[in-house]
Amino acid sequence: MEVLLVNEGTIAAVATGMGGAGIGIIRISGNKAIEIGNNIFINPKGKTLEAAKSHELLYGRIVDPITNKDIDEVLISKMKTPHSYTAEDIVEINCHGGIVPMRKILKLVIKSGARLAEPGEFTKRAFLNGRIDLTQAEAVMDIINAKTEKSLEYSVAQLEGRLSEKLEELDVILVAVLSHMEVNIDYPEYDIEEITYEFIHAEITKLLKKIKEILIVAETGKIYREGITTAILGEPNVGKSSLLNTFLMENKAIVTDVPGTTRDMIEEYINIEGIPFKIIDTAGIRETDNVVEKIGVEKSKALLNQTNLVIFMRDISKEISPGEKELLELLKNRKTIYIANKTDTLSEKDCKISAPWIPMSLIEESGIEILKKKMIEMVYEGTVNQEADYLITNTRHIQLLEETKKSLENAIVTMKSQMPIELVSIDIMEALESLRGITGKAVGMDIIDQIFKNFCIGK
Amino acid sequence: MEVLLVNEGTIAAVATGMGGAGIGIIRISGNKAIEIGNNIFINPKGKTLEAAKSHELLYGRIVDPITNKDIDEVLISKMKTPHSYTAEDIVEINCHGGIVPMRKILKLVIKSGARLAEPGEFTKRAFLNGRIDLTQAEAVMDIINAKTEKSLEYSVAQLEGRLSEKLEELDVILVAVLSHMEVNIDYPEYDIEEITYEFIHAEITKLLKKIKEILIVAETGKIYREGITTAILGEPNVGKSSLLNTFLMENKAIVTDVPGTTRDMIEEYINIEGIPFKIIDTAGIRETDNVVEKIGVEKSKALLNQTNLVIFMRDISKEISPGEKELLELLKNRKTIYIANKTDTLSEKDCKISAPWIPMSLIEESGIEILKKKMIEMVYEGTVNQEADYLITNTRHIQLLEETKKSLENAIVTMKSQMPIELVSIDIMEALESLRGITGKAVGMDIIDQIFKNFCIGK
Repeated sequence: MEVLLVNEGTIAAVATGMGGAGIGIIRISGNKAIEIGNNIFINPKGKTLEAAKSHELLYGRIVDPITNKDIDEVLISKMKTPHSYTAEDIVEINCHGGIVPMRKILKLVIKSGARLAEPGEFTKRAFLNGRIDLTQAEAVMDIINAKTEKSLEYSVAQLEGRLSEKLEELDVILVAVLSHMEVNIDYPEYDIEEITYEFIHAEITKLLKKIKEILIVAETGKIYREGITTAILGEPNVGKSSLLNTFLMENKAIVTDVPGTTRDMIEEYINIEGIPFKIIDTAGIRETDNVVEKIGVEKSKALLNQTNLVIFMRDISKEISPGEKELLELLKNRKTIYIANKTDTLSEKDCKISAPWIPMSLIEESGIEILKKKMIEMVYEGTVNQEADYLITNTRHIQLLEETKKSLENAIVTMKSQMPIELVSIDIMEALESLRGITGKAVGMDIIDQIFKNFCIGK
Repeated sequence: MEVLLVNEGTIAAVATGMGGAGIGIIRISGNKAIEIGNNIFINPKGKTLEAAKSHELLYGRIVDPITNKDIDEVLISKMKTPHSYTAEDIVEINCHGGIVPMRKILKLVIKSGARLAEPGEFTKRAFLNGRIDLTQAEAVMDIINAKTEKSLEYSVAQLEGRLSEKLEELDVILVAVLSHMEVNIDYPEYDIEEITYEFIHAEITKLLKKIKEILIVAETGKIYREGITTAILGEPNVGKSSLLNTFLMENKAIVTDVPGTTRDMIEEYINIEGIPFKIIDTAGIRETDNVVEKIGVEKSKALLNQTNLVIFMRDISKEISPGEKELLELLKNRKTIYIANKTDTLSEKDCKISAPWIPMSLIEESGIEILKKKMIEMVYEGTVNQEADYLITNTRHIQLLEETKKSLENAIVTMKSQMPIELVSIDIMEALESLRGITGKAVGMDIIDQIFKNFCIGK
């Protein structure tokens, strides 16, 4: 790939969460990282960071070299280029995870010659230095933001390059096709045009089939990455908040065991069999007001357009109200699950309840498993594919794959119209550009070099 | 110190903040830590955690040994006993700092035989295993929760044992005194009682002087640790929120540069020359309502009783209102700074403003430096001592030192009342117990051993 000289200076940032925690990490990357770390670190036995081995944790103190005052007790390590996250020299300082110690060490590092890293700049450097491609860089953020263990699994697979491998297969075919065409363009006297056309057509058809396969699982990827946007709708006091709380409590148990977790961060995501459902935080849910009444029919429609799934809930002990009728009207032809709550208030249970209504009593904790099963069913009626070992989870990737597909379809149209092979070549070059946009691999001299190196017939 | 066998099992927890960040650390401590880490880690070159050196960072993946699925890409390290934070075997897994990867690895570690650590349990083990004393253990929490760089400095000094050293000086004298007394009690035939009394009296007087010195700077420590509780009071729309925002903006610049910082966490602390001022978040400040009017005189008084300092603010363009008069009445005899805001609305500036009122215009950014100077002055009128190189910052320590002092004073009273030396000995033993309560050093066999080993006269 092209060498891009963009690694301006040595960068530093707090790499861990900013809560008051046991440990915090200040990360420094760049050619001055080790020098900076060396100048502010003192080991009780006099060992310097300079003298330490790569990937060795050294115990000691961070000391301001000007005031000579101790800032914190730390473990420090260096990771020598290219064996580091950014492929540059990296220094990591494990200090106490309070805001003031982390901030003070970061300030000292910056005073010593680093600059504050921009968001994502460490990963950007890993990409620019050629250690990872764009899909892997994107996977890093997906791992950090993963909503469920299943989403995590696919993101880790992407980080490990499984998507890149899949794309590389397509890349190889496209380059082969282009090479064949170059031969034909450069050596028309060989009269291999017909063979070329046949070959190209077959290869493009093969490619289109593969791309379609990838795109079919893309919807699944999007679900794992972004979740199924779900709204719980209903009149006041039918039990919407209780249902949300039931879901959240099941999901929170482990997270809230860990000190420092803030509820807000994930409280709108619930996890059912690995599928993240993103519960829309509407006034209707939180304040148990009637959405339609409060925000009007138009806005309710707009809200519903943002959701993939609606859970409509009513109180079975009451007659259906005009407001509910209005809402039910709005929900026609949408993916809706109908819940008849408060069956505990009925003398003869379920007698009034028939499909599609699901009987529920949050007080008696009944009906919740059936609802969850139904929610998963609704997702699988879509395109969730649990078997895929890689997934396109990123809309940028989907868009570029769609563009690749479109360029290849254009190529076939161009060929069918008996246009010169040069024009077909343009379509295919465009397809390659779109495809390489996904991994960030440049379409530059390398492909031209490769074509001429491998395929030029004795010239 | 006594050996306490309380390290039940191997413990694990997320050691970093739980925000979505670049890196998260799962920490495992105990005799099964390395075995657990070894079973769930795979290095691409086949190197195991078992085979790694202590304090070596190994790159690889965390893999669930049952499903054989990758969970995350990590750096792992082990720190062999006793060269670790807890003095036990420790394994640290540096994974991606998202909630799901951290949670999933923690779950796997627990499934593999560790149990979730209780809050503070790693530091508790460091104490129980004798690596640090109680003041150092407490310093760890103070470092993490430090409000300003000055507070951090004193906590780091405490972690490094500077307070412990100071207390050790007192401990040595007390043990010497006790030894002398034991000699006297055990060998009354030597008739050294008078010398002993003189010696003891002199030593206790010396000790009392030292303890008083320490207690004088304790108030300073408390300020650095907990901050000066400050209320900004005044009628609606006089500029209270603007003042708070001005303070916060000056303080937030660096913290908010760091991704993942949540505003809420520290927004009520402002830092002026290293002194933390804790701004009480009252309805009066936030909602710009009149506190007295809203919550009543009694509650206002209760609120004022929790504050160390009041900043009273009025709008100079308006006459003093009855509500303001009422509030000013409440503030008599309290540490109050009086601000006459909105001088920009006056034609002849400052003409109406005389001491103690400080003229201010937040729009023209004038008066803020004078206010800050005044706030610091108010603190220094107290007992802040900027020269001390150690500080008692912890109320538990202050209480125990007060108890030590009291026992020593009792000893002097007992001596003056010509009571038997055994009774004086009891007072002094109590003083030692209180003193050792600070560091957690037990008053047990060790002191008795020392007394009889060093001071027994040929018997």
